[in-house]
Amino acid sequence: MVGGKAEYLGSGCIRTDLGELPSRLKQVYDGVSEIITQFAPAEFAIERVFMARNADSALKLGQARGSAIVAAVNAGLPVSEYSPTQIKQAVVGTGGADKSQVQHMVKHLLKLPGTPQADAADALAIALCHLHTRQSLIRMAGRVSGAVGGRFR
Amino acid sequence: MVGGKAEYLGSGCIRTDLGELPSRLKQVYDGVSEIITQFAPAEFAIERVFMARNADSALKLGQARGSAIVAAVNAGLPVSEYSPTQIKQAVVGTGGADKSQVQHMVKHLLKLPGTPQADAADALAIALCHLHTRQSLIRMAGRVSGAVGGRFR
Repeated sequence: MVGGKAEYLGSGCIRTDLGELPSRLKQVYDGVSEIITQFAPAEFAIERVFMARNADSALKLGQARGSAIVAAVNAGLPVSEYSPTQIKQAVVGTGGADKSQVQHMVKHLLKLPGTPQADAADALAIALCHLHTRQSLIRMAGRVSGAVGGRFR
Repeated sequence: MVGGKAEYLGSGCIRTDLGELPSRLKQVYDGVSEIITQFAPAEFAIERVFMARNADSALKLGQARGSAIVAAVNAGLPVSEYSPTQIKQAVVGTGGADKSQVQHMVKHLLKLPGTPQADAADALAIALCHLHTRQSLIRMAGRVSGAVGGRFR
């Protein structure tokens, strides 16, 4: 975020090799840690998962997610979580949007020269949702304190 | 392990507070890291999970597991995983043993003055299973190299 506006700095995917679980989780941890070192963000946002397809994929997703979140917390970053519906709502305006709509809007909102790859678009959408939520909270806080001021002064 | 025999050094549970997920995952990570610093183990073993009860509990378990495994890998420890059946087989002698049998055998094998709490007994059983597997592998390696020597010389 630069001057209250979203500006594109970078995006990508952390891909792990087909090795053993511990080494793959370490790759997720190191990948997130590297990005934090490189871009020095002040906050970290991640998609909240409610329902995975099945218990096996939920376990795998959980392990990778746990590894990524711990990398962020170990770097001292506050972690925010958003549901897929919140993310789509913030970026497309409707919670039921599909992947291509998310890609299109992310490209539009960040004035990208090309359409980002689907996973990178999801990550950028989470960042935009987080920015949007933060700005709404700041506006709401302003309004609430104004109202309280009006009532008690 | 002292002189090829299992010796009890300690056991316990890492309990997290009821806070937010990132802070709880950090408590798991820090808890495992602390134990590694305190006891300076050369290896790390953890129960393999095949089937969680449902997708939601699998996700939670996965997150905690990912956090614990990454703490071990970040400390430079090799990680071994054992299925519940392997663990029970190694400690009780049958893969279908129940919790109280595991507690009883862990108490017996480690000559503990009292019965360990169920979660601690599970952890100790994993350690015993790991020791047992390592010793079998070393014996097998010895036998195989002996057989090869006999055939080819």
